[in-house]
Amino acid sequence: MTKRTLIADLLKRPEAGGTHTVAGWVRSTRASGDVAFIVLNDGSNLSGIQLVLERATVPDFDNLSKTGTGTALQATGELVTSPAAGQQFELRVTALTVVGNADPDYPLQKKRHSFEYLRSIAHLRPRSNTFGAVFRLRSKLAQAIHQFFSERNFLYVHTPIITASDCEGAGELFRVTTLPPNGAPRNEGGSIDFGQDFFGQKTGLTVSGQLEGELFAQAFGNIYTFGPTFRAENSNTARHASEFWMIEPEMAFSDLADDADLAEEFVRYLCSFALRECAEDMAFFDQHIEKGLIQRVRAVAEANFARMDYGDAITHLQKAPVSFNFPVEWGLDLQTEHERYLTEQVVGGPVFVLNYPKDIKAFYMRQNNDGRTVAAMDLLVPKVGEIIGGSQREERLDLLEQRIDELEIPKEPLWWYLDSRRWGSTPHAGFGLGFERLIMYLSGMENIRDVIPFPRTPRHAEF
Amino acid sequence: MTKRTLIADLLKRPEAGGTHTVAGWVRSTRASGDVAFIVLNDGSNLSGIQLVLERATVPDFDNLSKTGTGTALQATGELVTSPAAGQQFELRVTALTVVGNADPDYPLQKKRHSFEYLRSIAHLRPRSNTFGAVFRLRSKLAQAIHQFFSERNFLYVHTPIITASDCEGAGELFRVTTLPPNGAPRNEGGSIDFGQDFFGQKTGLTVSGQLEGELFAQAFGNIYTFGPTFRAENSNTARHASEFWMIEPEMAFSDLADDADLAEEFVRYLCSFALRECAEDMAFFDQHIEKGLIQRVRAVAEANFARMDYGDAITHLQKAPVSFNFPVEWGLDLQTEHERYLTEQVVGGPVFVLNYPKDIKAFYMRQNNDGRTVAAMDLLVPKVGEIIGGSQREERLDLLEQRIDELEIPKEPLWWYLDSRRWGSTPHAGFGLGFERLIMYLSGMENIRDVIPFPRTPRHAEF
Repeated sequence: MTKRTLIADLLKRPEAGGTHTVAGWVRSTRASGDVAFIVLNDGSNLSGIQLVLERATVPDFDNLSKTGTGTALQATGELVTSPAAGQQFELRVTALTVVGNADPDYPLQKKRHSFEYLRSIAHLRPRSNTFGAVFRLRSKLAQAIHQFFSERNFLYVHTPIITASDCEGAGELFRVTTLPPNGAPRNEGGSIDFGQDFFGQKTGLTVSGQLEGELFAQAFGNIYTFGPTFRAENSNTARHASEFWMIEPEMAFSDLADDADLAEEFVRYLCSFALRECAEDMAFFDQHIEKGLIQRVRAVAEANFARMDYGDAITHLQKAPVSFNFPVEWGLDLQTEHERYLTEQVVGGPVFVLNYPKDIKAFYMRQNNDGRTVAAMDLLVPKVGEIIGGSQREERLDLLEQRIDELEIPKEPLWWYLDSRRWGSTPHAGFGLGFERLIMYLSGMENIRDVIPFPRTPRHAEF
Repeated sequence: MTKRTLIADLLKRPEAGGTHTVAGWVRSTRASGDVAFIVLNDGSNLSGIQLVLERATVPDFDNLSKTGTGTALQATGELVTSPAAGQQFELRVTALTVVGNADPDYPLQKKRHSFEYLRSIAHLRPRSNTFGAVFRLRSKLAQAIHQFFSERNFLYVHTPIITASDCEGAGELFRVTTLPPNGAPRNEGGSIDFGQDFFGQKTGLTVSGQLEGELFAQAFGNIYTFGPTFRAENSNTARHASEFWMIEPEMAFSDLADDADLAEEFVRYLCSFALRECAEDMAFFDQHIEKGLIQRVRAVAEANFARMDYGDAITHLQKAPVSFNFPVEWGLDLQTEHERYLTEQVVGGPVFVLNYPKDIKAFYMRQNNDGRTVAAMDLLVPKVGEIIGGSQREERLDLLEQRIDELEIPKEPLWWYLDSRRWGSTPHAGFGLGFERLIMYLSGMENIRDVIPFPRTPRHAEF
């Protein structure tokens, strides 16, 4: 078909002039006598471009000047400097083709819709301003994450989605099966015979690629995963989805301090990237979603992240002149209210809390010499609290096995994980970042359902 | 910990000199009198670096000169020009630390192992030459794919993994459930009550993100997906896995010719990229996996891809002076033997076959005016046959609905897909590329199990 120019590229031209063809969807139409104005959006930017139609030059002006919202158009015309405020260029149209009609039933007429309503038309909402901006940000951030690791020579590994192991028992698993729901084969005792299931055993959807990622770090040094993970938790909150994407880097020959260094560099990189490469969309979020967003993100991009021991954090919280809903005591986990107090009131910026009590952390975290803490870290940021969790891993086989036994975790299914400590074991560390949490943090969007193209939550798997 | 330099970066230095620290795993050790040579690999390249230990300068020389394969070491020394053939630099060691021991039980001793054996130790095989090269190639290609689309302003979209729809009925679905395997709730009639399952309906793992990708193309113009897809086929071949990654671009305002243009540009880009950015690993594949590989890949990188109608392809095959195992007749699908004959014998290079009979293609492909073909395309390449399949999609609502009815596909579950043709519909086209097939093509590896970190196939979900 006729080569079209992306509107974003057209608007980046240093000066007006030249004949160009664009194609997209009508956001609004306004006629005034012998002139009509159509805002056309092709998804490449937020604002689209204004098409100017004049009766004298555009055949079928009467019909075209009433083009409905949602119509797909192809327009050719001259790029001219716009007399209107808020836009540098507009397109003075010489030829206009209706590619696909939209009647007045189109559900995305130009007016404000609630996010809740827009979720029910998730197949159309990307054509709205807010969701156009959200999914452009999501795409650019994903690409930036690959670029960050690629520049640092981290190897990207696709860890398995279907798994027979349950990393850290982090949540309830979705079961994956091809057994017939009715009349599955049974063992002599009457229980289901998973030996006859597709994989010859009971399998589920992964909750984390970390354990397999560690294996690859023991061969390639620095690696990362970036893929979907799953939690079958039956909870309906604005921050939990059943299917979400996670980034998990892992570094051999590294300790907890190296891990925090990487997390700090990573978060600052992504904040700077969003401000620089998604400027128009970030300005939209700042204006329409969360006032002050850009200042908040810039503060993180420019901060030196503080580091604080868990023990000191507890002391700060116990001295705090505020009353918390949840108890504060050495040995208890921090709740969001505590995390926010630490990052917002005590530090006034991002802070790593380090070395948590071992009894509230996973079996694979490295035991510190004090016998009661492990080399874990959480990164806390203003407004949300924890955004990254990580740790140095226990690389000493005897201590790892001892901890697994203490927690009564079955050791045999982890033979391959233990093997990675058997030959050429190295100190290593990594962290996990929920991709959707990051997008929410950078956009100000407050419901995880509004940063995932087609969200999966309890009782919802539409589209 | 002490900052280490990646061996790949060290070997890229323009000249010898300077003191550097590296860390990695021992591939081989060889002692000769008062000198010992250790090849250390950190995964950043294929060859690693040679450490030179001299009795006079390295304490504990007697023990260190017998360091076993698989041991993790940290070494500091001076980068010097190597007198040995095949390597420019070596490291004259001044300090050496054993980070993690490896006893002689280490399963990856320096000798040839069969790929089949190495599959049983998939947690260790990345430390071998072949699998180091394979997974470096896999990582760099994945990053290159994001770069290709990012440079062209394609939006990356994460389409859902858990789905209630079955795109094109492409294969058997894995079921995703949280219902108890024993005693699932039942309807009055006795059938399983999926209304009580996690998502309130029967759900499975996606076989393609195309349909959802099309929705996003109708908002953002040019988009792509890159994520895991699943097939519950109980077939054990060297080319099928139950879990694999797929790339699926989709372009609005585009027809079949545009689609072929993009596919050609994409494949040539990736071939050139592999030759340029993975040169050492590609040379290894050429030498040890498939003689002539580099020449084969370069031929594709430099070719102009031919285009041929399905009807002409049938005529060529019917005139062919060879006997095929499968029949050749207008209306039948092409088999690999036919595809290879066309690309290897008729064209002598990559060829798109266009416009297949509609009865052998999916419901969503655009009907041509002849009433019997659709705007489908397959890209055939020497050695393997089909590597990409795509089509222009049917954007005309009436024709799409008619085809769905003809094929007796339930229409109601596709309401959202049909909606995308209801308002502002546009001609659009896309294709799918199996990522593992691409890696096999570029590396010469012949079993899909050997290009996936932890492959999932019938009865196999280890690690």
